[in-house]
Amino acid sequence: MDNYYMSQAIAEAKKGFRQTYTNPLVGAVIVKDNHVIARGAHLQYGYEHAEKNAILHCQTPEELVDSTLYVTLEPCHHRGKQPPCTQAILAAGIKKVVVGQLDPNPLVAGKGLAFLKEEGIEVVTGVLEEEARGLNPHYNFYYENQRPYVVLKQAVSLDGKIAVLGKRTALTDAETNRFVHDERDDYQAILVGADTVLIDNPRLLGAGTSLYPIVRVILDEAGRVFERQDLQIFTDDSAPILIFSNHKVTDLPSHVKVIDLPEFSIANILRVLYDEKIQSVYVEGGAAVHDAFLDSGLWDEIISYVTPKLIGGNGKAAMSSFRLVEEVLELQDFSCQKIGNTIRLSAKRRT
Amino acid sequence: MDNYYMSQAIAEAKKGFRQTYTNPLVGAVIVKDNHVIARGAHLQYGYEHAEKNAILHCQTPEELVDSTLYVTLEPCHHRGKQPPCTQAILAAGIKKVVVGQLDPNPLVAGKGLAFLKEEGIEVVTGVLEEEARGLNPHYNFYYENQRPYVVLKQAVSLDGKIAVLGKRTALTDAETNRFVHDERDDYQAILVGADTVLIDNPRLLGAGTSLYPIVRVILDEAGRVFERQDLQIFTDDSAPILIFSNHKVTDLPSHVKVIDLPEFSIANILRVLYDEKIQSVYVEGGAAVHDAFLDSGLWDEIISYVTPKLIGGNGKAAMSSFRLVEEVLELQDFSCQKIGNTIRLSAKRRT
Repeated sequence: MDNYYMSQAIAEAKKGFRQTYTNPLVGAVIVKDNHVIARGAHLQYGYEHAEKNAILHCQTPEELVDSTLYVTLEPCHHRGKQPPCTQAILAAGIKKVVVGQLDPNPLVAGKGLAFLKEEGIEVVTGVLEEEARGLNPHYNFYYENQRPYVVLKQAVSLDGKIAVLGKRTALTDAETNRFVHDERDDYQAILVGADTVLIDNPRLLGAGTSLYPIVRVILDEAGRVFERQDLQIFTDDSAPILIFSNHKVTDLPSHVKVIDLPEFSIANILRVLYDEKIQSVYVEGGAAVHDAFLDSGLWDEIISYVTPKLIGGNGKAAMSSFRLVEEVLELQDFSCQKIGNTIRLSAKRRT
Repeated sequence: MDNYYMSQAIAEAKKGFRQTYTNPLVGAVIVKDNHVIARGAHLQYGYEHAEKNAILHCQTPEELVDSTLYVTLEPCHHRGKQPPCTQAILAAGIKKVVVGQLDPNPLVAGKGLAFLKEEGIEVVTGVLEEEARGLNPHYNFYYENQRPYVVLKQAVSLDGKIAVLGKRTALTDAETNRFVHDERDDYQAILVGADTVLIDNPRLLGAGTSLYPIVRVILDEAGRVFERQDLQIFTDDSAPILIFSNHKVTDLPSHVKVIDLPEFSIANILRVLYDEKIQSVYVEGGAAVHDAFLDSGLWDEIISYVTPKLIGGNGKAAMSSFRLVEEVLELQDFSCQKIGNTIRLSAKRRT
């Protein structure tokens, strides 16, 4: 029955979809005498945690005595925006706690369960662990690897070009564009190079389904974008902007922040994003930026929107630079999906 | 009922799959008193035509009198390897002929049906015409456009590269390679550039399911392949080779023929292939050859095998050259299929 109740907790967790960042999705159900007596999810950052929400949803406090709590993620044992869940569990008289996944956040990591065990509460772990982990792939990755999860996203013609040289080139259709805007909302940052900003003049916004605006990150060592204050990234202040540049500038709009790195490298950029609590980055190119990530080894997935078009000739080739390549990189988890006029291909770096 | 019997004739035609070149697939059924009394297909080049085969499969000649013949392609009215089918139809006493598709071959083109009508035989045309045409897409194209049907085939990494620069690079797995070898058998020629021959040293053979060996065509204006008589194209004589080159050579193996063009262009190359009765060409690259076809406008379909690999950097980009490209070419009929570790994408030039 543990799997049965945990799957209900997992379904519950999904109610917080795209609303809980920087927190993870968490769901809980409380069971007594083989009946679910309460459910709860972490619905939004700053609101009650899932366990607390479930406890609050019981009809009477007496019901909770000797009940079993199923929760997708290890209960917290620190005071953040909310008092620790472990205390609430103890106070409620819950006698058994079944956990999907241990929390990789070092503030929690094992401490919650250790406390509960010390207090005589029966603890079961690893129930539907993989499914529970699947609720928060970026959150888990961020804490387990001390950097954001990095996706390289491109839109290409059938011959692997991203544009007619030097021109804004629309390859995907409206339906695909809507899909991509929605997909951006799965990430905390969109990252592009200066050429993309200067040629395409994008707004770099998501579909707005996420409660928190996606940070727009721009790599521009030479500070070329600052010459063009008419660009949409400057005129549209609906999401913050981080520009990595060694160029010193003043008089920028308040939504723009410039970061000067001692050494311009993908590793250093990701270190800053980690400190900014950005758990995942959607890298939209161009070709040289993608290739720099490829070269760094600091990337995790590629998503390629292949369109029924051809460019050929001197069209701008995807993921290219003068870097000497000696061998082919093999990927895993290759999959495809049709969206609009486009085939969406994705694959992951071999781990 | 016409559609019903024509679909049986179409099924019959498929029995000659890959065996009838330079002839098309043709099937026939003969119907009398609402019963199929005979079936026939053109099974192999030089053998009886479908109509004749059906006539021969009747139990007695008397049965044929006042019967109806369903045939996927207009009966021939000229003497080739076989006497004209129109004469056999007339002699048999068949009173009605139902045809799927008119024959685009100028030797036949309308003459067969005109003769039958003159002789008082009832003629119905255009029954399941599209399906009947679908039996012989390359044959139809060849006669209707006076050139072979041209497919540009590539195998690429997810970032649109075809190779690590200057190295033989295997991107597709064994299952995909088997599929491609079989697919080659749909064409009468495989065409590659000199670089592909020099770097990959391929045999350029099909899977052997076609009765006629696929002609191997090599574009090598400067005659660089002649320096390397150890190449598999020279040592393996199991299929003919045409080399387009302005280089004069002697002492070549008997399966190799060199063609010197007054002007080296895709149009001129296709004109020679047309004269050689090659109805379809599978162009396997490399990048510059594909781009030359793209530039010429003389191509019809692209097939791209996308593999779960990345190359990046200075890897060789698909379909590329120094040619200045001004705009994106939109394609139609985009489709995808998973084969082995590979996604096979195909699309057609807009007509």
